[in-house]
Amino acid sequence: MDDPVLEEIQMDPAQMETLDATDPLAKYRQAFSLPEGVTYCDGMSLGALPKSTASRIAKVVTQEWGDGLIRSWNSAGWIQSPQRLGGKLAPIIGANEDEVVVGDSTSVNLFKLLVAAIRLRPGRQTILMESSNFPTDIYVARGVERLHPGTKVKLVGAGDLDAAFDEDVAVALLTHIDYKTSEMHDMKAVTARAHQVGSLVLWDLSHSTGAVPLHLNESKADMAVGCGYKYLNGGPGAPAFLFVARRHLHATEQPITAWIGHDKPFDFSIDYVPAAGVTRLLSGTPTILSMSALESGLDLWSGVDVSQVRKKSLRLSELFLRIVEHRLGTSEVKLLSPRDPNRRGSHLAFQHPRGYEVVQALIDQGVIGDFRDPDVMRFGFAPLYLRYVDVWRAATALVEVLQSRTWDQPRYRQRAVVT
Amino acid sequence: MDDPVLEEIQMDPAQMETLDATDPLAKYRQAFSLPEGVTYCDGMSLGALPKSTASRIAKVVTQEWGDGLIRSWNSAGWIQSPQRLGGKLAPIIGANEDEVVVGDSTSVNLFKLLVAAIRLRPGRQTILMESSNFPTDIYVARGVERLHPGTKVKLVGAGDLDAAFDEDVAVALLTHIDYKTSEMHDMKAVTARAHQVGSLVLWDLSHSTGAVPLHLNESKADMAVGCGYKYLNGGPGAPAFLFVARRHLHATEQPITAWIGHDKPFDFSIDYVPAAGVTRLLSGTPTILSMSALESGLDLWSGVDVSQVRKKSLRLSELFLRIVEHRLGTSEVKLLSPRDPNRRGSHLAFQHPRGYEVVQALIDQGVIGDFRDPDVMRFGFAPLYLRYVDVWRAATALVEVLQSRTWDQPRYRQRAVVT
Repeated sequence: MDDPVLEEIQMDPAQMETLDATDPLAKYRQAFSLPEGVTYCDGMSLGALPKSTASRIAKVVTQEWGDGLIRSWNSAGWIQSPQRLGGKLAPIIGANEDEVVVGDSTSVNLFKLLVAAIRLRPGRQTILMESSNFPTDIYVARGVERLHPGTKVKLVGAGDLDAAFDEDVAVALLTHIDYKTSEMHDMKAVTARAHQVGSLVLWDLSHSTGAVPLHLNESKADMAVGCGYKYLNGGPGAPAFLFVARRHLHATEQPITAWIGHDKPFDFSIDYVPAAGVTRLLSGTPTILSMSALESGLDLWSGVDVSQVRKKSLRLSELFLRIVEHRLGTSEVKLLSPRDPNRRGSHLAFQHPRGYEVVQALIDQGVIGDFRDPDVMRFGFAPLYLRYVDVWRAATALVEVLQSRTWDQPRYRQRAVVT
Repeated sequence: MDDPVLEEIQMDPAQMETLDATDPLAKYRQAFSLPEGVTYCDGMSLGALPKSTASRIAKVVTQEWGDGLIRSWNSAGWIQSPQRLGGKLAPIIGANEDEVVVGDSTSVNLFKLLVAAIRLRPGRQTILMESSNFPTDIYVARGVERLHPGTKVKLVGAGDLDAAFDEDVAVALLTHIDYKTSEMHDMKAVTARAHQVGSLVLWDLSHSTGAVPLHLNESKADMAVGCGYKYLNGGPGAPAFLFVARRHLHATEQPITAWIGHDKPFDFSIDYVPAAGVTRLLSGTPTILSMSALESGLDLWSGVDVSQVRKKSLRLSELFLRIVEHRLGTSEVKLLSPRDPNRRGSHLAFQHPRGYEVVQALIDQGVIGDFRDPDVMRFGFAPLYLRYVDVWRAATALVEVLQSRTWDQPRYRQRAVVT
């Protein structure tokens, strides 16, 4: 945190205006369509809508599909979309263009790469994970365990990871930034530790991509997956991505072998021959409409300096934290995220016994964060569209909802399906 | 074929106009956006664009995503979309609403159900398939074979299927309507044969759904998958669907266990507990934009009588075939599809040694069919948007391209990526 501004951030709205006026990322806010009266601190769950996306989708629907019909697989480049989007994503995660493809869901990609990783390390039986991992990653690993007699998922607590690496670990499946606490792994150090004993690491970058600078190749990462609908702003349920380092590609064999991953899909041969590079990780037909929305989100990232994103993200988070703790003390809410900003992603998590109601009361006031059972409130800071004044407003609203107990109303207790 | 009109169909454009004027499905053509000057006979590859879809997508993008943001998972019903779309699809395939979900690709769904089927028949080692099956189905089966030591894919030729069922067949993975020849299985008879020896049948309905009446439950079908982007008009790469009969659901265990298939996904428990019904077949987050387009396509089907669709489909196909064979004889092109209309789906396949060029020359004249290696031309007849005059025009154009050898030009030999 060699950022003098960060050290000096106070709770002064005038200072916020100055910071916004000199923000090198300020222009990106204009590229997003944000509803009036809403301060959106949930970009780590669903990113906001880029203005260009509506017209992009409309063009894909009416011109490419409606007029071009089947011809658009060639003429509009639909068939290359998994690789083209992968190429656009690669610089955001510090990968080469030929190491990334976009498609399927994060869960399906995790499944494919976990099986592929086990095959790259025959004789080893352990999938190493943290029990604090995003639960769906654990569910996927359980599914892979069931398919491979002998393979065992080993869950360890935070702090026990380093010691848990041994010669039996085929692969560690780790979330780079914890979905709940926002705690961030040191990718380079953990990968080096894994490689010491010959293990692979499969990183889940769902809460990292577009939130913090990533250097997959510099970190010698083996494999990764990530999400298109959070900080990449690809739309609800946007296709996910996967990364496999070049050095592993020739030997990588994934389990869902299907036509788009075939070396010559239009020969319609009955023998499966995997495509040469990362294309072999693909399976079925890409969902073109959802892919187009994600491509629009990725295009917005093309001129963005991710180190600027990180710098602003740290400032926004610290600002939020200081306002909350300065005005409330630490008795009303408890910071669950690491206090050291260098160990955090781009969101903050606080514990409050009535967190669900607090979040609902805030939404009623136009400040959108989210809640994770049993008592965690999350507030995310997407630097492309959040201003300093927004974060000041959000923090102030949280303070006031808690001080005035606005949350303590029956209507805020009604649980929705999705929390 | 108890259809007197069908028996009397001639090559008379005036008769075509009369048939269009009295067509009970004529109104549906108005519901589609079709480009000027194009006769579209490729609905079995990518269905046409329903007019309502552009505005539906625009609303999902700008209102539900842009304004509603994360709240739309509840308020716009995004979270229930896999089951809601499944419920809308169920009547089209003769299933109950609680037996169908929409999501993932056909390949991924095939993978999940094939593994699930093997688990339902422990001790049996054979996956029975036809070598003429759509190649991607064979690739998926090979992938499943590799995951299950002992399990073997057994490929048999057409005509050898019946004799190939024995007590070792866990599941037969069969395409109901052949993607190339259009030949259709008797679902009820094949299923009964499989059940005689205790095998399951997993039907690929990609070329059947929305093309022919389907009665999954009446046929005692076990499992099925199908495609959203062909006759359902869900858009390029639309999500696929899967069906599991109620009697199997409680014991069905699929391999890609992930959060959307969990009994209580928002409890974020580390233990995977499958949801009670067909929901357990889901894995990752649904691709909402692509799902919305498919839902728009499904809504268009809500008032459609599939038996009328079949009746018109048979008339359109017979008409095309008679024009072609009456004017060309059978020496210039060879019908690859069964001659008996009751054994065909909704497309016709012809062999011609220069089929690729012929199809390109036709596209240049606004008649879109497609080509499959090495020598097969396919022409599909989607009764919701194709008129009798269209089919008359398409068949006439094919005759003229062949008679005048319009196809014999260097520019038609240039192969595109997607054929």
